[in-house]
Amino acid sequence: MLLRFTKMHGLGNDFMVLDLVSQHAHILPKHAKQWGDRHTGIGFDQLLIVEAPNNPDVDFRYRIFNADGSEVEQCGNGARCFARFVLDKRLTAKRHIRVETKSGIIELDVRSDGQIGVNMGAPRLVPADIPFQAPAQALSYQVDVDGTPVELAAISMGNPHAVLRVADINSAPVHELGPKIEHHPRFPARVNVGFLQVIDRHRAQLRVWERGAGETQACGTGACAAAVAAISQGWMDSPLLIDLPGGRLSIEWAGPGQPVMMTGPAVRVYEGQVRL
Amino acid sequence: MLLRFTKMHGLGNDFMVLDLVSQHAHILPKHAKQWGDRHTGIGFDQLLIVEAPNNPDVDFRYRIFNADGSEVEQCGNGARCFARFVLDKRLTAKRHIRVETKSGIIELDVRSDGQIGVNMGAPRLVPADIPFQAPAQALSYQVDVDGTPVELAAISMGNPHAVLRVADINSAPVHELGPKIEHHPRFPARVNVGFLQVIDRHRAQLRVWERGAGETQACGTGACAAAVAAISQGWMDSPLLIDLPGGRLSIEWAGPGQPVMMTGPAVRVYEGQVRL
Repeated sequence: MLLRFTKMHGLGNDFMVLDLVSQHAHILPKHAKQWGDRHTGIGFDQLLIVEAPNNPDVDFRYRIFNADGSEVEQCGNGARCFARFVLDKRLTAKRHIRVETKSGIIELDVRSDGQIGVNMGAPRLVPADIPFQAPAQALSYQVDVDGTPVELAAISMGNPHAVLRVADINSAPVHELGPKIEHHPRFPARVNVGFLQVIDRHRAQLRVWERGAGETQACGTGACAAAVAAISQGWMDSPLLIDLPGGRLSIEWAGPGQPVMMTGPAVRVYEGQVRL
Repeated sequence: MLLRFTKMHGLGNDFMVLDLVSQHAHILPKHAKQWGDRHTGIGFDQLLIVEAPNNPDVDFRYRIFNADGSEVEQCGNGARCFARFVLDKRLTAKRHIRVETKSGIIELDVRSDGQIGVNMGAPRLVPADIPFQAPAQALSYQVDVDGTPVELAAISMGNPHAVLRVADINSAPVHELGPKIEHHPRFPARVNVGFLQVIDRHRAQLRVWERGAGETQACGTGACAAAVAAISQGWMDSPLLIDLPGGRLSIEWAGPGQPVMMTGPAVRVYEGQVRL
């Protein structure tokens, strides 16, 4: 059968988006792997699958696969593309959309300027929920990396994040410390690692080493986690503009227990048809 | 306007193929650059454009752009995809197709097993035609690379190639010598650099450092140039099977003045539509 898909990106984080509400197909990890190859396939960071919900309280169900076939809990840039996709494809007429993901319900708003706002849910800071091994919850932790103590915040945005503050984003040890912290035994499910340079109370720069992917152009959940780390440690105040290599996200957070609101662009690149 | 395109690959060398016979559009280098980006665009090694011929003796005109917007003379893997494309799209019913390229006319045959044979034309060995700086034509040349003499053959297949014989393909200094020879002053238009390990009289392994692209999965003109170098220096006999990282090509060459015949696969991946 021929499957219709849309190629999209959010700040250079790129997606193959499949409508499995109006098309019927059984997608396996091997398809994500085959399609994800950038030379012999379609090429993407993640495959986003739009499905009908299991739950009557939500509009859609949203599943995410990496190009290696593994399933992901959450993807902030993908969520914005998801919202633009379901509106463009007229799968809904709502501009406020509730979506069921592997890690809980997220809420999406399509703004009149085309930017998409995503309620990313409240950050989880309890170590066992991240998961992170620590005797008690704290705003930051000291982690031993090859005998050197590294100060970091540990936050879950549905997926685990470590956030390190750096003095200069360009010389941040992303490729040296990123993989070491990703695989550190205190993060049993591995971890995404953000390197944050605070510019002023409302502006910062961020680079993210993503779990299983290396440094990426822009990690949406990483920007949320970095904002939570910066606000809760008193370095910055909401709202924040965070510049990633791929572009800018705006983040709002009212504090503990409150949801993180992320706003940014979603771009449709082309429409495709592939044989399943 | 919406432009239809097809994504194809030959041994992992991947192409966006545009039919500008039945669609009318003016494609600029900036479009190749925009579409070529693997995260924010469509992503490809080369953009292949199918046009009506200027010349009544040929069936099509074929233009090739790199993802950086520069125009290329010749691409062997692209030529095979070109042949499959014009047949699949019913732009011709012929199975023997004559195509005008920037570097001359090439002839394509679609075989009954789906493999595509390409008459790549006769190799040019005169140094000024490659272009390569040498006092006289020879089967091989000694080139000084940072004070070390390197033995290589210099051949044009419409584009310039240097071919070096190596004892072991896996440890070949592709990334060390490739860029140094690519930019060597004796190759004023730069050069593609092939590293060839001869297995027996009819089988070889090849890795190619491509001008402007680095090491690639499979370089079709590079396999032709390597075959010419191996046959003319008496290392191998036609026909040859050449294994590249992306797969296998079969090459036939009857000797000086004769055309090189290359046979290999061409795969259609998906159909797309993009806004111009």
